[in-house]
Amino acid sequence: PVNADRIAEDIDALAGITDPGHPWTRRAFSPLFLEGRAYIEARMKAAGLETRIDAAGNLIGRRAGAKPGLGTILVGSHSDTVPDGGRFDGIAGTIAALEVARSLKDRGIELDHDLEIVDFLAEEVSIFGVSCIGSRGMTGQIPEAWLSRVSGDRTLSQGIAEVGGDPSVLLSQKRPDLAGFLELHIEQGPVLEAENKDIGIVTAIAGITRIEITVEGRADHAGTTPMDRRADALVAASQLVLDIRSRAAEQAKTPGHFAATVGEFRIEPNAANVVPSKVVLLIDGRAEIRSDMEDFLTWIDGEVKTIAADYGVTINPPVRVSDNMPTPGAPVLLETLERACETVGAKHRRMASGAGHDTAWIAKVAPAAMIFVPCKEGRSHCAEEWAENDDIAMGAAVLFEAVRDMDKN
Amino acid sequence: PVNADRIAEDIDALAGITDPGHPWTRRAFSPLFLEGRAYIEARMKAAGLETRIDAAGNLIGRRAGAKPGLGTILVGSHSDTVPDGGRFDGIAGTIAALEVARSLKDRGIELDHDLEIVDFLAEEVSIFGVSCIGSRGMTGQIPEAWLSRVSGDRTLSQGIAEVGGDPSVLLSQKRPDLAGFLELHIEQGPVLEAENKDIGIVTAIAGITRIEITVEGRADHAGTTPMDRRADALVAASQLVLDIRSRAAEQAKTPGHFAATVGEFRIEPNAANVVPSKVVLLIDGRAEIRSDMEDFLTWIDGEVKTIAADYGVTINPPVRVSDNMPTPGAPVLLETLERACETVGAKHRRMASGAGHDTAWIAKVAPAAMIFVPCKEGRSHCAEEWAENDDIAMGAAVLFEAVRDMDKN
Ligand SMILES: NC(=O)NCCC(=O)O
Ligand SMILES: NC(=O)NCCC(=O)O
Repeated sequence: PVNADRIAEDIDALAGITDPGHPWTRRAFSPLFLEGRAYIEARMKAAGLETRIDAAGNLIGRRAGAKPGLGTILVGSHSDTVPDGGRFDGIAGTIAALEVARSLKDRGIELDHDLEIVDFLAEEVSIFGVSCIGSRGMTGQIPEAWLSRVSGDRTLSQGIAEVGGDPSVLLSQKRPDLAGFLELHIEQGPVLEAENKDIGIVTAIAGITRIEITVEGRADHAGTTPMDRRADALVAASQLVLDIRSRAAEQAKTPGHFAATVGEFRIEPNAANVVPSKVVLLIDGRAEIRSDMEDFLTWIDGEVKTIAADYGVTINPPVRVSDNMPTPGAPVLLETLERACETVGAKHRRMASGAGHDTAWIAKVAPAAMIFVPCKEGRSHCAEEWAENDDIAMGAAVLFEAVRDMDKN
Repeated sequence: PVNADRIAEDIDALAGITDPGHPWTRRAFSPLFLEGRAYIEARMKAAGLETRIDAAGNLIGRRAGAKPGLGTILVGSHSDTVPDGGRFDGIAGTIAALEVARSLKDRGIELDHDLEIVDFLAEEVSIFGVSCIGSRGMTGQIPEAWLSRVSGDRTLSQGIAEVGGDPSVLLSQKRPDLAGFLELHIEQGPVLEAENKDIGIVTAIAGITRIEITVEGRADHAGTTPMDRRADALVAASQLVLDIRSRAAEQAKTPGHFAATVGEFRIEPNAANVVPSKVVLLIDGRAEIRSDMEDFLTWIDGEVKTIAADYGVTINPPVRVSDNMPTPGAPVLLETLERACETVGAKHRRMASGAGHDTAWIAKVAPAAMIFVPCKEGRSHCAEEWAENDDIAMGAAVLFEAVRDMDKN
């Protein structure tokens, strides 16, 4: 029911509106980002949509429904990217949503509900250090303190105003009209490709918990200090990294997605001939089932005590830097999406999202769900990021059928 | 036979010629360094020494001997410091050497040999990234390429010229006149203090071998990539750190000083939600006995292969960034120093130096040896670095007796 060529044309065009030295970079708030948006807005208009920028800086294309007051079906994703990646991450979902509106127009199908296609502002961690600005902002979930975050010579508030948003009314945004939200996204993992599935129906977006741990040892001369008289922070932190890996691998074997990763790791003084005195590391934990995260948090509290004792270092209690709950997909929409897959003949499976998405924020105020399409080797956030256009078109077809189904109910 | 108060006075005065915000910083080539040297030079002159700066930028105070042609007895250390440390590291030995000359003068003792007191230029790793410039330079051991190393707006060659050296004749320096060299230094380790000894007679300066290892994994999304499909460079590198520690601890139990430390450790991309793709780490190895280092090098070559296989990462063969042989103290001088300890009643033991010293470079061209005095808790290269003045004075007395003994033989 959708036009695959038109999807490819738009995704390729947007890949051209990126920094060639850093493929496929189009950072939120940058001139390239505004250029990309101008392209998307023009395509929205060509699809007969009425465009606007909402208070949170989201680009929205609207098509009024036949029955005013029934509410709005919202579909979309984001067009900003991480540095050095993002050819499909966000864009595939934005263009697939646009294609739903185009296909409805092509076929002369009128919906009862209003339909809005959205390009959320700054889903990725932006220059202001925070993510999902558009989806949080649309639904009044931006903490006030964020507005004064600074990057370069502007605040987040100014950044939102520059893309056309209205910070003065941002904190009080509500969307009581939302009847439902759907997002298509590349999986960013290897499961669909490995299992030769077309569509992942996302049962839940894993909660993300960030835990900072500081290991403090003693800076000693690496040449002269006997091996048995050291308090080497790097050695203790290395034990911690290995134990976190083993524990996470065990928890991952039980039902429900679970992962834990040490992605940030800094040592001091980081000098060739000095025994490391300090390591600060950050654990990124993901859990589809909250009790899994609780178990992990309890375990890590005990684990650092054991390591501190074993290695003669000091480790303060782990600091929970951030802690978000898992977000289940709306059950009714999971069924809608399953029916849509059957209708278009897509091989599908249910699965959790290990990554965070705008859907998690919209889900706080309205029924929301998302689908994944396969991506090559699970890679994303890198230049190699790739998804087959036919897979994206299949996803767009699922969205098309699901939107029609939602409109009936 | 020496004046402890005079030693304290000089060391305290030099501690005052440091950066108060960064105790006890007096970096080679800095204005504070030249100020410290002006103080030392004035004190050398007051001791009746004839001062000069040699081609390598070493400050030398000379006292002619009674029998021209017998050769020169050289005694000294360095007055530059590491950043944020160095109250005694270097200075204790420079002032103790000066005190030997002063005591000889006080007592009207004339030596047969010429005597030179030296403050070596830039023993610590300097702003030019290399160490022991003065002791290497005095003896023609500076690699030519080093002279064009750059820091800020000057080359090492210009830096040496600015402190009064002569780069044009530096590479051909020889000191065929050297009859022997002695250096006093703080131990920078905990052994003498723990064993309640006054003096360590250094049997050998350990060889220093630096080994760089690059672990390459795959940058994957930390949220979505299943635990069993990762090539996490940090996890593999952590295993390596633990295994190096265990191996070094084992080797340290056999005769001969041995230590191995991972002091530099950098991960990429170092982002919270990305599985680390790369770790570059640097091992600092120290061995009193060369075959211990050979054993370690053989072991590490095999170890990285095991870890690469176990963790699904790539580890190129370890790169030997630098590799210096152990330097034994001249046996005749070790006996001289032992006799001197007995004469002054110093409790002494033989021990290796795990740290590198100027003595290692002078030892390449002349009989050389060094003594250690205790320092508090083995700490050095930090603000807490401390040595008791009485211990330094005891060391100076040992030097005094040793110089007189050398002069007789
Ligand atoms: N989808 C995605 O990559 N979101 C970024 C936040 C995260 O999950 O780490
Ligand atoms: N003595 C001393 O700290 N030398 C610095 C070189 C080293 O041994 O690491």
